[in-house]
Amino acid sequence: MQKATLTILGCGSAMPTRKNFPSSQLLEIRDKQFLIDCGEGAQIRMSQMGVKINRLGHIFISHLHGDHCFGLIGLISTFGMLNRTAELHIHAQPDLEKILSPLLQYFCSDLPFSVIFHSVNPRKHELIYEDRSVSVYSIPLKHRVPCCGFLFEEKPRDRHIIREMIDFYNIPTWRIPKIKQGEDFITEEGEVIPNNQLTKASDVPKRFAYCSDTAYSEKIIPIIQGVDCLYHEATFMDDEQVRAKQTEHSTALQAATIALKANVKKLIIGHYSARYINQTALLNEAQSIFKNTVLGEDMTIYDI
Amino acid sequence: MQKATLTILGCGSAMPTRKNFPSSQLLEIRDKQFLIDCGEGAQIRMSQMGVKINRLGHIFISHLHGDHCFGLIGLISTFGMLNRTAELHIHAQPDLEKILSPLLQYFCSDLPFSVIFHSVNPRKHELIYEDRSVSVYSIPLKHRVPCCGFLFEEKPRDRHIIREMIDFYNIPTWRIPKIKQGEDFITEEGEVIPNNQLTKASDVPKRFAYCSDTAYSEKIIPIIQGVDCLYHEATFMDDEQVRAKQTEHSTALQAATIALKANVKKLIIGHYSARYINQTALLNEAQSIFKNTVLGEDMTIYDI
Repeated sequence: MQKATLTILGCGSAMPTRKNFPSSQLLEIRDKQFLIDCGEGAQIRMSQMGVKINRLGHIFISHLHGDHCFGLIGLISTFGMLNRTAELHIHAQPDLEKILSPLLQYFCSDLPFSVIFHSVNPRKHELIYEDRSVSVYSIPLKHRVPCCGFLFEEKPRDRHIIREMIDFYNIPTWRIPKIKQGEDFITEEGEVIPNNQLTKASDVPKRFAYCSDTAYSEKIIPIIQGVDCLYHEATFMDDEQVRAKQTEHSTALQAATIALKANVKKLIIGHYSARYINQTALLNEAQSIFKNTVLGEDMTIYDI
Repeated sequence: MQKATLTILGCGSAMPTRKNFPSSQLLEIRDKQFLIDCGEGAQIRMSQMGVKINRLGHIFISHLHGDHCFGLIGLISTFGMLNRTAELHIHAQPDLEKILSPLLQYFCSDLPFSVIFHSVNPRKHELIYEDRSVSVYSIPLKHRVPCCGFLFEEKPRDRHIIREMIDFYNIPTWRIPKIKQGEDFITEEGEVIPNNQLTKASDVPKRFAYCSDTAYSEKIIPIIQGVDCLYHEATFMDDEQVRAKQTEHSTALQAATIALKANVKKLIIGHYSARYINQTALLNEAQSIFKNTVLGEDMTIYDI
């Protein structure tokens, strides 16, 4: 089974630093790729890492601050040069289409693929995308401008068949898809073979939540409850609580408090203010509340 | 005396690579900074290099392909966050103002400084900017879209006074500015002291030419004749001459031929196609024609 992974392309905040590009990350789940935010240089990070993005069909933009979307035009332009033909879907607030369309017309008038905008209402928690293996929900966040996070939920996978039992009962191939989905098998003699004798449970579906940018907000807790991995912004140390509140960002302590209260399995922090050259203090602060915190770092791949 | 230097922030071409960001470079001359082109990530490179750009007042954009201007909005936005107050002047084709203005309004509505656009006609060789120490001229180039390079010419500096001679003739301070500019001194007794006994020649003014993007064009030779340093694009090796012609780019051999014919002192090549992982072959090819060729590299500072 392929693991679900998160590749952080940039986990800096508004101003890029020596270490951190602005926000952008690539979620890979069930052989699909989803780009979450696309700050300036997202495509550069991908080429630096040698990440191939031929399975990327959907981009999710949390809000319309430059550090979360200035990389879109460059990325789309590059897709054009690479002769991409598959549709590219962008899920964002409707203003993005108004902003990007004139740029696309000017710089990318001959794109060999369509860019399709899907309007997201950042004030609502709702299903905004699904395919046969993944559902994506918006998570209303609390920021200076309308902003939402995203919850990615893997759909349950088919159960694994137990090959020996299938052979033993001589089950024809055409019955297998239904059995993988949990159906019992009835032999010609009318004997019912319960599904749990024929299959083993599949892996538990993964859940990942992206919450940036946001002030401390307990309203998100029921939505992200128990996720396998939470990326939560931690722009400041807790001694900058006042500044965090003013700018509607979170401190590392607050991010960890959310992780604890939502009982998540792992917390990745990021979106660090440029003032923190050494980010270990942010990690220590978060870990003092929530032990399984990981420091988000650019160009790093995390298991979900 | 402070040297004139060129900092290459990016010398890749349309698609960024592991090594090269898109086009952007910072010219520092006479305590001023000029940004030439501003591809995606220009501000990131500056922060990676720790380059302070508090003396940057003027940006020159060669043409409106994304790899030469997608970094502008991020840079301007960052200037806003840094509370810049000095005017920022952008010299470019008039379309740039039309493209950038809506973005500035949306993302940077409360900038604490003015962004002033100056229209450049890329088809004319003319003076487009000057201050008391530098003149900048456009250089019409040959590309798929209107495009021009830029010639930066330092104005002659004042002559250096010979302190002992000034003391010997007891020349009052108020006369010195004129003497630095070449005036003779007349003593109270009416004796004429020729200027060359009182001063030494200042350093020869530097000239730098930026020529990217362009097909091979001998028309630029009279304009860039004898410059101290020429940055000329070398997108391809000469075995890709056909492709170079189609896309209106130059080969390394062509760049070197221009350098040779224009009798420049030093050639820096750049704007490499992403296909060249190892760029040494491009350098070797150029050096086979023009010995004093230097391989342009990102995040590197060159003396002019």
